Amino acid sequence: MRFSERIIAMQESPIRKLVPVADEAKRNGKKVYHLNIGQPDIKTPEEFFAAVRGFNENVLAYAHSQGISDLINSFIQYYEKHNIHLEKDEIIVTNGGSEALIFSMIAVCDHGDEVLIPEPFYTNYNGFGSMAGVNVVPVTTKAENGFHLPNKEEITKLITSKTKAILIANPGNPTGTVYTKEEIYMLRDIAKEHNLFIIADEVYKEFVYDGLEFMSFAHLEDIKDKVIITDSISKRYSACGARIGCIASKNKDLIKQVMKLAQGRLCVATIEQVGAASLINVPDSYIEEVKEEYCKRRNVVYNALKEMDGVVCEEPKGAFYVIAKLPVQNAEDFVVWLLKDFHINNETVMLAPAEGFYATEGLGKDEVRLSYCLNVNDLEKAMNILKEGLKAYPNKK
Amino acid sequence: MRFSERIIAMQESPIRKLVPVADEAKRNGKKVYHLNIGQPDIKTPEEFFAAVRGFNENVLAYAHSQGISDLINSFIQYYEKHNIHLEKDEIIVTNGGSEALIFSMIAVCDHGDEVLIPEPFYTNYNGFGSMAGVNVVPVTTKAENGFHLPNKEEITKLITSKTKAILIANPGNPTGTVYTKEEIYMLRDIAKEHNLFIIADEVYKEFVYDGLEFMSFAHLEDIKDKVIITDSISKRYSACGARIGCIASKNKDLIKQVMKLAQGRLCVATIEQVGAASLINVPDSYIEEVKEEYCKRRNVVYNALKEMDGVVCEEPKGAFYVIAKLPVQNAEDFVVWLLKDFHINNETVMLAPAEGFYATEGLGKDEVRLSYCLNVNDLEKAMNILKEGLKAYPNKK
Repeated sequence: MRFSERIIAMQESPIRKLVPVADEAKRNGKKVYHLNIGQPDIKTPEEFFAAVRGFNENVLAYAHSQGISDLINSFIQYYEKHNIHLEKDEIIVTNGGSEALIFSMIAVCDHGDEVLIPEPFYTNYNGFGSMAGVNVVPVTTKAENGFHLPNKEEITKLITSKTKAILIANPGNPTGTVYTKEEIYMLRDIAKEHNLFIIADEVYKEFVYDGLEFMSFAHLEDIKDKVIITDSISKRYSACGARIGCIASKNKDLIKQVMKLAQGRLCVATIEQVGAASLINVPDSYIEEVKEEYCKRRNVVYNALKEMDGVVCEEPKGAFYVIAKLPVQNAEDFVVWLLKDFHINNETVMLAPAEGFYATEGLGKDEVRLSYCLNVNDLEKAMNILKEGLKAYPNKK
Repeated sequence: MRFSERIIAMQESPIRKLVPVADEAKRNGKKVYHLNIGQPDIKTPEEFFAAVRGFNENVLAYAHSQGISDLINSFIQYYEKHNIHLEKDEIIVTNGGSEALIFSMIAVCDHGDEVLIPEPFYTNYNGFGSMAGVNVVPVTTKAENGFHLPNKEEITKLITSKTKAILIANPGNPTGTVYTKEEIYMLRDIAKEHNLFIIADEVYKEFVYDGLEFMSFAHLEDIKDKVIITDSISKRYSACGARIGCIASKNKDLIKQVMKLAQGRLCVATIEQVGAASLINVPDSYIEEVKEEYCKRRNVVYNALKEMDGVVCEEPKGAFYVIAKLPVQNAEDFVVWLLKDFHINNETVMLAPAEGFYATEGLGKDEVRLSYCLNVNDLEKAMNILKEGLKAYPNKK
């Protein structure tokens, strides 16, 4: 039987494709430090679990397609803290940030339309594009510039009659880049001049370091009809398994259209919504502490990378990722070699080859993404293994 | 700002679009019996809630994209009871039956491909088709024949080079029709001769009455590479809010392809998966009792409809729905009239106009879907209101 061309064309997750190699290493008795996945190790707030345990309906009924009222209110209160003012009919609860992104693409693009996305980008954007029949048009950014955006001319020359939106993650995954106000204003100007939506993936907004200020696209009053915020509790509350996110926009007509998609899938898991609604009661100190912890980890990782010969990488200012260019011929081969052929005291490290984060053929072949979701102690060991591994690796540039 | 044509073309849920009219009736002090929605009132098994309360991880982490191991095993054991033998790599846990259907469409159809679906059909199939860029081609069935399938020739003449699958719900929603073995064999033959997938929506398989035997498409050994089962715990365990379903197929390559979609959305809500996994411990008597209860309700509804002048409907043999043709000019007008202008002792009834369950323009205008998710006592009252309402309604045929 033949499958669809679009599903055959979908790539396997570059983050997960080497898992069998890691599993083999573990079977052979090696300990593997996982810097390849963005699964936080931080404790989920107890408020979440308490609310889940307190669920006491007799019938686990469909929730409202828009989301349960308590959770919508919880999101509204949360955004108020970030000086983003939303009304009840400007938010829809989604199955994680993933569904918010798919819904956004479907709402603004027909089949064959285009969305500009700075690359390297979160690899699942490709999958969402395939599912929605939307072509991802990469705006290439570079390790040497800390993955900041090219100038306006470079970006606008990619716009065609089929371009409907710019999708941007700020802070960036996999880059950790926090865009400057100037970059955000430039994108605003482009959106205005070319009548484009901006789909802003702001799930890492709490994780901005070094005193930098996070600026949301929702703060841009003059393009508020063009801005679609996609968000998730996964990272900031260490609750990835809840699959709770939202789509928010001051464009109420957009939200009305997206409601049709939300009704189509009926609702988001009810009990996890109840848990998520309680997170508004988590003291702000929780997120402050989490942020401090990630900042410490960022320092460990970046300082270690800086000391390694031939590694190119600017200090990431946000999220919990960094992309590093390595002095190797092929980063995927290097990652496999680390798992198969290298260890220090029977321990090794796993990274994500970065090629899968690029849409442009040939880019990222000598780059890896490191995620710093391990404690500082483990991270130090992992970075030492990487350093020694690089020294010992035979296929360097 | 312009939205996509596909989202503008999506219809609002015909089940929910009259909710504001019902809300107004309630504000005016009327009690409304809801026969418009398929939200079971039966208690969810306590095992589910106990497992949820027992969840004791510190970090609510991403689950495996395929689903947690316990839940996959739970589905495998459940299917064994139905003489369906599945291996671990033949199932993926999904966000309800909805996601299983969308994944199936995307996996077998490219944009513009066609899927044959007997109409009237579950209205969200239209939405899934829009999202996946798939054209729904209706195979019209009629109230007069209990919505059984037309003959083979009628069906095959709808097949084009773009037809990739037949999607069929058995038992049917909104019809309650249970297809005969002969019908199932006919579809098998069509699938073989035209190399089509069969996407079988079997979420109501436990609800088959009058001693009829349910036959799954998974029982057809000779087309096992062509059969995709979509399923959900929502109805059989009265757990709609959990959003737990699955996609199952003996075609392991298909499951491998669908895994890419599953990885794209990372995972299904973790805690609801833990709850769902425990359902395998629910004694079979639970489902037996639920089935008996629905059968009683079916009898109340069908016997009442049979007595109403001018109503056309065959006895439904499964699920908890029935479509009835009413002696009115326009069923939606009648439903609105019942809510706005009619009552017995300040009580009225809400039905779902059936037009939205048809893809063929003009069909279903004088039909309604009744869902029997109320207790027998309330159903009797509701059916009496319908009977008297029909007598009093001014715009009859």
